[in-house]
Amino acid sequence: MEKDSKDLFNSTIFLIVKFKGYLVRKLARNLISIAIPCLLFSAIHELTEFNFASSFSLPGLLGAALGVLLVFRTNTAYDRWWEARKVLGSMVNICRHFALHIHMQIEESENKKRLFLMLKAFPFVLKEHLRKGVIFEELTFLPDDILEQLKQWQHRPNGLVRMMLQVIEHEYERGNLSDFQRIKFMEYTDNLLVVLGKCERIHNTPIPIAHAYLLKIYIWIYAMIMPIGFIDQLGWWTFVPVLIIYYVAMSLVIIAEEIEDPFGHDPNDLPTDKMAHMIKGNIEEIQYKQPDYQVVV
Amino acid sequence: MEKDSKDLFNSTIFLIVKFKGYLVRKLARNLISIAIPCLLFSAIHELTEFNFASSFSLPGLLGAALGVLLVFRTNTAYDRWWEARKVLGSMVNICRHFALHIHMQIEESENKKRLFLMLKAFPFVLKEHLRKGVIFEELTFLPDDILEQLKQWQHRPNGLVRMMLQVIEHEYERGNLSDFQRIKFMEYTDNLLVVLGKCERIHNTPIPIAHAYLLKIYIWIYAMIMPIGFIDQLGWWTFVPVLIIYYVAMSLVIIAEEIEDPFGHDPNDLPTDKMAHMIKGNIEEIQYKQPDYQVVV
Amino acid sequence: MEKDSKDLFNSTIFLIVKFKGYLVRKLARNLISIAIPCLLFSAIHELTEFNFASSFSLPGLLGAALGVLLVFRTNTAYDRWWEARKVLGSMVNICRHFALHIHMQIEESENKKRLFLMLKAFPFVLKEHLRKGVIFEELTFLPDDILEQLKQWQHRPNGLVRMMLQVIEHEYERGNLSDFQRIKFMEYTDNLLVVLGKCERIHNTPIPIAHAYLLKIYIWIYAMIMPIGFIDQLGWWTFVPVLIIYYVAMSLVIIAEEIEDPFGHDPNDLPTDKMAHMIKGNIEEIQYKQPDYQVVV
Amino acid sequence: MEKDSKDLFNSTIFLIVKFKGYLVRKLARNLISIAIPCLLFSAIHELTEFNFASSFSLPGLLGAALGVLLVFRTNTAYDRWWEARKVLGSMVNICRHFALHIHMQIEESENKKRLFLMLKAFPFVLKEHLRKGVIFEELTFLPDDILEQLKQWQHRPNGLVRMMLQVIEHEYERGNLSDFQRIKFMEYTDNLLVVLGKCERIHNTPIPIAHAYLLKIYIWIYAMIMPIGFIDQLGWWTFVPVLIIYYVAMSLVIIAEEIEDPFGHDPNDLPTDKMAHMIKGNIEEIQYKQPDYQVVV
Amino acid sequence: MEKDSKDLFNSTIFLIVKFKGYLVRKLARNLISIAIPCLLFSAIHELTEFNFASSFSLPGLLGAALGVLLVFRTNTAYDRWWEARKVLGSMVNICRHFALHIHMQIEESENKKRLFLMLKAFPFVLKEHLRKGVIFEELTFLPDDILEQLKQWQHRPNGLVRMMLQVIEHEYERGNLSDFQRIKFMEYTDNLLVVLGKCERIHNTPIPIAHAYLLKIYIWIYAMIMPIGFIDQLGWWTFVPVLIIYYVAMSLVIIAEEIEDPFGHDPNDLPTDKMAHMIKGNIEEIQYKQPDYQVVV
Repeated sequence: MEKDSKDLFNSTIFLIVKFKGYLVRKLARNLISIAIPCLLFSAIHELTEFNFASSFSLPGLLGAALGVLLVFRTNTAYDRWWEARKVLGSMVNICRHFALHIHMQIEESENKKRLFLMLKAFPFVLKEHLRKGVIFEELTFLPDDILEQLKQWQHRPNGLVRMMLQVIEHEYERGNLSDFQRIKFMEYTDNLLVVLGKCERIHNTPIPIAHAYLLKIYIWIYAMIMPIGFIDQLGWWTFVPVLIIYYVAMSLVIIAEEIEDPFGHDPNDLPTDKMAHMIKGNIEEIQYKQPDYQVVV
Repeated sequence: MEKDSKDLFNSTIFLIVKFKGYLVRKLARNLISIAIPCLLFSAIHELTEFNFASSFSLPGLLGAALGVLLVFRTNTAYDRWWEARKVLGSMVNICRHFALHIHMQIEESENKKRLFLMLKAFPFVLKEHLRKGVIFEELTFLPDDILEQLKQWQHRPNGLVRMMLQVIEHEYERGNLSDFQRIKFMEYTDNLLVVLGKCERIHNTPIPIAHAYLLKIYIWIYAMIMPIGFIDQLGWWTFVPVLIIYYVAMSLVIIAEEIEDPFGHDPNDLPTDKMAHMIKGNIEEIQYKQPDYQVVV
Repeated sequence: MEKDSKDLFNSTIFLIVKFKGYLVRKLARNLISIAIPCLLFSAIHELTEFNFASSFSLPGLLGAALGVLLVFRTNTAYDRWWEARKVLGSMVNICRHFALHIHMQIEESENKKRLFLMLKAFPFVLKEHLRKGVIFEELTFLPDDILEQLKQWQHRPNGLVRMMLQVIEHEYERGNLSDFQRIKFMEYTDNLLVVLGKCERIHNTPIPIAHAYLLKIYIWIYAMIMPIGFIDQLGWWTFVPVLIIYYVAMSLVIIAEEIEDPFGHDPNDLPTDKMAHMIKGNIEEIQYKQPDYQVVV
Repeated sequence: MEKDSKDLFNSTIFLIVKFKGYLVRKLARNLISIAIPCLLFSAIHELTEFNFASSFSLPGLLGAALGVLLVFRTNTAYDRWWEARKVLGSMVNICRHFALHIHMQIEESENKKRLFLMLKAFPFVLKEHLRKGVIFEELTFLPDDILEQLKQWQHRPNGLVRMMLQVIEHEYERGNLSDFQRIKFMEYTDNLLVVLGKCERIHNTPIPIAHAYLLKIYIWIYAMIMPIGFIDQLGWWTFVPVLIIYYVAMSLVIIAEEIEDPFGHDPNDLPTDKMAHMIKGNIEEIQYKQPDYQVVV
Repeated sequence: MEKDSKDLFNSTIFLIVKFKGYLVRKLARNLISIAIPCLLFSAIHELTEFNFASSFSLPGLLGAALGVLLVFRTNTAYDRWWEARKVLGSMVNICRHFALHIHMQIEESENKKRLFLMLKAFPFVLKEHLRKGVIFEELTFLPDDILEQLKQWQHRPNGLVRMMLQVIEHEYERGNLSDFQRIKFMEYTDNLLVVLGKCERIHNTPIPIAHAYLLKIYIWIYAMIMPIGFIDQLGWWTFVPVLIIYYVAMSLVIIAEEIEDPFGHDPNDLPTDKMAHMIKGNIEEIQYKQPDYQVVV
């Protein structure tokens, strides 16, 4: 789909100012830690007889290894981000199916209303379970007894699903659900737990520390060796290209670190809050929309 | 499968004119925003004593980082485009299964006809739901009462599926469908919603803003630094290679932006309109083709 | 698995002659369209005072962008080819399951024979449906009434599957199949349609025109700019390296175009004809092999 | 999700010391085996008339091939590590579903308690089965008779699953489980075995020896040829860049070897012990949390 | 998991001798076919006035295209190898499930024993079906009548599965299996055929001939053009770097050819024989381990 490109020009300049500002703040200390040794090198080179200048081939070779690791880091971080998005997308689908089948197959009753409420609560419980714990202020639409029970669970999504299953079993025992329908509803609750498990996996698994560490170390070494190639030509200005290269490489690393765990509140994170409200709206439309379609007999 | 290569030569030249024209229009402002500073640099270099010229290694290094991001951008955009195509392809499959089983397993009745009509409407509703909202002029083949109901829904595909489910439940309650058949039909409607959910995911999720922004910024920086390497040799012509490189890099970005959300009306978007009509044709052939195959007893 | 490498040497030289001949034929016009301007440049350079020669850095930078696009093009084309192969492989599996279960679960009858015949016909119908339409000469093993019916369908694979389903429903209505068996057979026919739908998707979806066009344009531009780097050294021979580079790049493009729609008759296409006959043989062995294994009571 | 970047600077320097120390220890012998010939080359170059120095293009070309293999090695190792993580994540999901359905669908009995205990034991049995054999000290929560039986099995996870199935069959025969429920429980045990099989596959399959060997050989050759390019400029210091390049390349190889079989006790391995305890906690909360949600009648 | 790195140093040198020896043997003819023209070039250059030497840029450009194809070739070959390993891993899982459910759900009888025997035979039949045909000496544990029947089939795995299905149908007809159990067993046999079909696909599908041929041709051309860059400096020694580069590139190609069809007896192939025996051992432990776990009533 075509984006409006008319304001690309303006926005580009705006973005440079805004976005670089954001990254520069994050990288401020690192940039200073690079700039100081650079200036030191320049001082030694300019003020003493000592000559660093040499062929530039070593950084070139190191650069290839760095390139490999940067591609790798960017790809794996993005893959996790996109997998997280897919998992949340499948939560949307499951909630819609589940709501449609509650609406169609369970008789009007207090139980039915409560099942709808629990389903609406699930995305809210999930998103905060992945942050710092469920925010009960968001769940005030739940009846008090359900809220009370939920508060007693350590692993709250498990608790919510156990309550859903209890309603379903109860309807089955009262003869309102056939074996087939019960299996179908059990599949939906199982799938809600699968969504949860996948989110937990992405949230709790950092990439292998070796990759995370090595990359930063190599970028640092690279930045320290780089001046050898510039210093003869640039003298006191050596630190300028060094900082630019260091900044470009580290900005990719910082972004990778942000998006590989996309359940927080960063600008690059997924809009889990918006999704929870959207799902709630969808379920309510399925639940309340009147009149039902009149089947022709 | 072999393409006719005889007119490759002609078409190549034709394409350069046509396609580049399309991109040049889209990139016009950006190209100007690059050309002006370039000419300024040339002016300073040619008319004053100030000398920019230096070793060309910095852009070379930056170029590697740019290359990484361009590969990454092109791949992820294409992957989304191809995933969207797969999802739409699975909609074709589901509609064919669904139509075959409606034809085989539901008795001739007004309900049956209406279920076929709703199924035919689904691809039309889906494609416009992903644009600016359903176009009811395309759905005139639907009976008025269904149209009326549909108009009252905010999330129209959900509404259409709820109506389909109502017909199925009604047939089940009248004893025309067994438990097994009902489960099968419920699977088909669930899968239609899965298709919808996946399309919504691709449509609503831009790539992480960090990647989208950084790439444009780096291309711009790169284009601004590049003249250092050329200016000594090319003088006033410096802007030519700068524009060419900038244009090549940005054209990849523009294409990525177009294809990563492929549900619109761009030349690079998927032919969702054509597919909706093709599915309608397929369903109608399955529904109306006479006579049925006479089984030998 | 180890290949016999003894004749690699001979075959290598043979291949150069044979395979390059094939590609050279396909690229003849393009190669000429490159050679002529090259010779023109050489003429201007050698016979006039005008000097093109310059630093070679521009093509080098463009080359990186080209490399990105060539990797991308080769990978996506191969992925489609391999996906097509997987889909056809799953057709082999489905046909074997289907045949085994027809043999085991349906009583000897005219219907059973006809179901076997229709199953044998499916791969033939599918492969030609993806080319220029079903070749009825290949289907002479089908009874005339089935052939007649099939001819009346526009979308013949759909027609064939509807007939299969009619036989299955008939067996179910006569009480020869349980609910479970009917569901199982319905899954097999659904899966045959899934195979069909995936093949149609691969066959009908060209890659985004932007990628296809841009790549050719960039290769052409690249070939036109390249002489700047060579002309001083090579003079009249400039066109030799230009043609070699152009040929290498375009051969990758041509191969990508061939394999990304692998259902035709090209040397690089999948052996769909051989597979259809192999499936027919497999089904016949399952159907006719005597005696059945005598179960020990 | 944003990481706290304030201590990045400090940690970076700390990491260089710590992590490089770890790798340097692992690579000590290799580094010496590279340093000695390097010093020899320097000695010959400095002390004799013999001149190694030449154009640097050969290592450059070899470097590209090395780069290809390093990307490949890093990617495949990471893919295995991430696949292992996904498989363990699905074990978490299966254990939660299984526990919920045991809680909901099996009546209070000694059998039920024992089924819970076996399920809790599975992750412990699996993780040590992938190391040096089950540690029975971790399984003291199991009743003695189960422990005794388990000790008699060579393939202990199979044994544990056979016991689970026996409890399920027993409940089915006593009429406490319907056909549907039994199938569901059978699916869960099947899936536990799928998890096991996938872990065994990753654990038991080294990458093709050709890739593992060739890469090390090429890095070694590369390090031996490299001095040709440096020796003229650097003399006795030649060994410094050679060691750095060798170290960077080999560190990627060493990390790949560590993470491609991630079930051990390395710092880069997956936290299987922590996961087993976490699953045990989850199951116990599902099993014991009181009171159950009171369904409104 | 950490590998013991102490003997890395020794093994590295050992490997160079051993593994390179293996590859050198395979590539001997090719290497000679490259060395002879190289020496010829050197002779012409050294003994005549004719001067080949030129800028080195052409091989550099061709090298990029070669790099693209080498990455691509290595990746696709490895992907096939790993997919084959996954498929065989799923065979392990299916055989374990199948054996557990035969043990649990079929009453002791001659039929049961024979079903176990057939299941044990399947991996042996599969692995040799993918080589040169089933080795009946490996299947002496099968009763004679089964062996006789099997010998009459062309497609032996299909034959074995048809016999398994006959036992299952027989048990179903005698009332020993419910509809649910029969469906479950039918799924297992279907999945064994899926494993078979996937192995056949990998075994029977060479990569597109275009890719296989082009790569070898380009490596050869590259090796022929390379001397232009070396000959001035190296004279008679030109053939040394040419052979090294050619050897490195071709060794990647040879390995790709070996691992992309991993069902043979090569050192890089999958251990299918060992797996067949391991599965047999697993099945026997499940079948014979006594006593069964005593369920507490």
